[in-house]
Amino acid sequence: MKYVEGGASAPKGFLAAGIHCGLRKNKNKPDLGLLYSERACETAAVYTANVIKGASLVLTKECMAKTGNKSRALIINSGVANACVADGYEKALAVTEIISRETGLPKEQIISASTGKIGLPLDLNPIKKSAGGLIKKLDKNNDFASAILTTDLVKKEKAAEIIIDGVPVLLGGAAKGSGMVRPDMATLLCFLTTDLNIAQPLLEKAFREAVNYSFNRVSVDGDTSTNDFAVIMANGAAGNKLIDTEDKNYFIFKEALKQISLDLSRMVAKDGVGSTKSIECVVKNFRTEAEAVSLAKSIISSNLVKTAFFGADPNIGRIVCAMGYSRVEFDFSLVDADICGIDILTKGEFANFSPEKVSEALKNPEIIININMNQGAAEGFALGCDMTYEFINMNGLYKI
Amino acid sequence: MKYVEGGASAPKGFLAAGIHCGLRKNKNKPDLGLLYSERACETAAVYTANVIKGASLVLTKECMAKTGNKSRALIINSGVANACVADGYEKALAVTEIISRETGLPKEQIISASTGKIGLPLDLNPIKKSAGGLIKKLDKNNDFASAILTTDLVKKEKAAEIIIDGVPVLLGGAAKGSGMVRPDMATLLCFLTTDLNIAQPLLEKAFREAVNYSFNRVSVDGDTSTNDFAVIMANGAAGNKLIDTEDKNYFIFKEALKQISLDLSRMVAKDGVGSTKSIECVVKNFRTEAEAVSLAKSIISSNLVKTAFFGADPNIGRIVCAMGYSRVEFDFSLVDADICGIDILTKGEFANFSPEKVSEALKNPEIIININMNQGAAEGFALGCDMTYEFINMNGLYKI
Repeated sequence: MKYVEGGASAPKGFLAAGIHCGLRKNKNKPDLGLLYSERACETAAVYTANVIKGASLVLTKECMAKTGNKSRALIINSGVANACVADGYEKALAVTEIISRETGLPKEQIISASTGKIGLPLDLNPIKKSAGGLIKKLDKNNDFASAILTTDLVKKEKAAEIIIDGVPVLLGGAAKGSGMVRPDMATLLCFLTTDLNIAQPLLEKAFREAVNYSFNRVSVDGDTSTNDFAVIMANGAAGNKLIDTEDKNYFIFKEALKQISLDLSRMVAKDGVGSTKSIECVVKNFRTEAEAVSLAKSIISSNLVKTAFFGADPNIGRIVCAMGYSRVEFDFSLVDADICGIDILTKGEFANFSPEKVSEALKNPEIIININMNQGAAEGFALGCDMTYEFINMNGLYKI
Repeated sequence: MKYVEGGASAPKGFLAAGIHCGLRKNKNKPDLGLLYSERACETAAVYTANVIKGASLVLTKECMAKTGNKSRALIINSGVANACVADGYEKALAVTEIISRETGLPKEQIISASTGKIGLPLDLNPIKKSAGGLIKKLDKNNDFASAILTTDLVKKEKAAEIIIDGVPVLLGGAAKGSGMVRPDMATLLCFLTTDLNIAQPLLEKAFREAVNYSFNRVSVDGDTSTNDFAVIMANGAAGNKLIDTEDKNYFIFKEALKQISLDLSRMVAKDGVGSTKSIECVVKNFRTEAEAVSLAKSIISSNLVKTAFFGADPNIGRIVCAMGYSRVEFDFSLVDADICGIDILTKGEFANFSPEKVSEALKNPEIIININMNQGAAEGFALGCDMTYEFINMNGLYKI
């Protein structure tokens, strides 16, 4: 796998655009994005685990059922979530109809997404007025990755090339997620694309594994959004022989997809609302991967770990405490741990560390907690960030 | 039930003391507390759900098993949790031996507790030196409720009188808990006493119900401590006829115990680390009480709800979102809700409220969210507080 420039529109046959249509007040902030494929795409999606779902998700699920997971485009607005409002579904449908009229694509093949504040009415006028201009701007170079952002400070996109049977295949993606991010099926937005030729059930299988390996392991604030989902569109433009079994080629693709998803997840963790540092916890030598991930998630989700790390306070007891309440059973008397290479636990007891050195290590912008359970062979990890004054500021005074 | 002055030492035959022995640097902060009964007590306890348990809890569990839930005294230090240290158990045992020597009580009848920083060694010397003085200070008026505090700003105690078969019976209690508080079996310290004459199985049953109704419904930061537990000691000094069936008298006692526990829980929520206001969420007309409590807990535990309320931001979508990810299924299209009397949701859609008025209501020091599910007859509630700059400050720079 080789990284290349670009994001969701990097793969062959994909174009994208992002413009400011007026849903958000800041004119420098694109708020309407379109992702477009010149050919029909096999599509796979995972949706938020929240019981209350934004109208665009409900519509997209219906469309995917109707078309048998075929799509040609994806339209997204930021600023307004179009959730918990009387006419949300009708408006989400109207948006796909607008794009359908302008592009000539069947409306069922247009995936729709919204991200922003819950409970505000979606104003269709700016979208109607701007749809033509949005489509004219479809290009390889575009502002799509910016148009999907809300409180994010940086755009998150990534692309890579793999070789399948001698044919170069591209993968790309853009993600959003800075607040309302918890490790639960797809609690952020991520739009991935590939020009790979692959059967839908295998695309779906690889994608679910990739999401579970990456986006489901990020926590910023512990809140699972109503509107988030992750989707992958595969248009087959690379021209490789169809992947329809779990062969070597499937494996190459799946590993690349996992890596790209992980790269984007790391960017989300790093850009967590108000954060000053990222935290990665790796749990090794445990019974199962799922239990290792649960332990790691418990640690990186702990408000007390997050605040201690912000203050570079070597309060190791909070890590131990968060392990203990993860609802995973384990023998603590076997556990070793280090932070950025400094031993903090030896066989379930505090190691003889220098608090000053741990505090110094906690000033790194990237903190790694390694936990060796010494009771199994499985490994798992989770990604997070610290919790800061700015977290309170941005979340206490958040406006669109 | 009639409230009376005092706390854990209010019931007949109970005395208590609190002194500064030197475990904490601040000489004005008592750090060693003793609760003493002149007669043997039936005892019931619930322990933290954390897999990693402080040494004092492990010892107390053993003692309760040995004595058949009989106790005479309770010794607690604050400042040091005596958890995750090599000789924690030996030291906890040594503390009960010290108190045993000074009081003449069997060491197995002395409950031990520690609260404070995890991973620090417990220094026995200050306890040895001060034990004699501590016992001399045993009195009805005492600093016990202060000695059990860590980051708490105010002491929490409550007492009340009930009449059982014409006999006045007293209940009292002191609680601690400002940080590391999550709604999970007994994640704070609470020491309750009564002079009621009651059989242990019924004491245990009433106590579990009271804990579940109160302490298990408070969340401050979502972290479940390693060291916390709740205990009740009943010494029978009131002289009422033994309660050994679930009769009217049992019911009177149980209701009073629930109320005292709830009062103490409210004090804990109000004194949550760095908080400026308490938040109470009541969920009505739902399928079961447990599910109603789960929904309420999800809302008051949400970092995004807590920060919005700190900023008096009428971001109702966050309440909706937290309901949706509670893992409880429900029909949102039936749900009504209000904040401090202002309608915010009507049949699953945003009510036509004035954001300014909701913001004004969110400036109250006590915020009530009422949710009417309109899909059942059960009710549940949860207690929490807002999340503030001071929360970050105290948790990022926490020292003993």
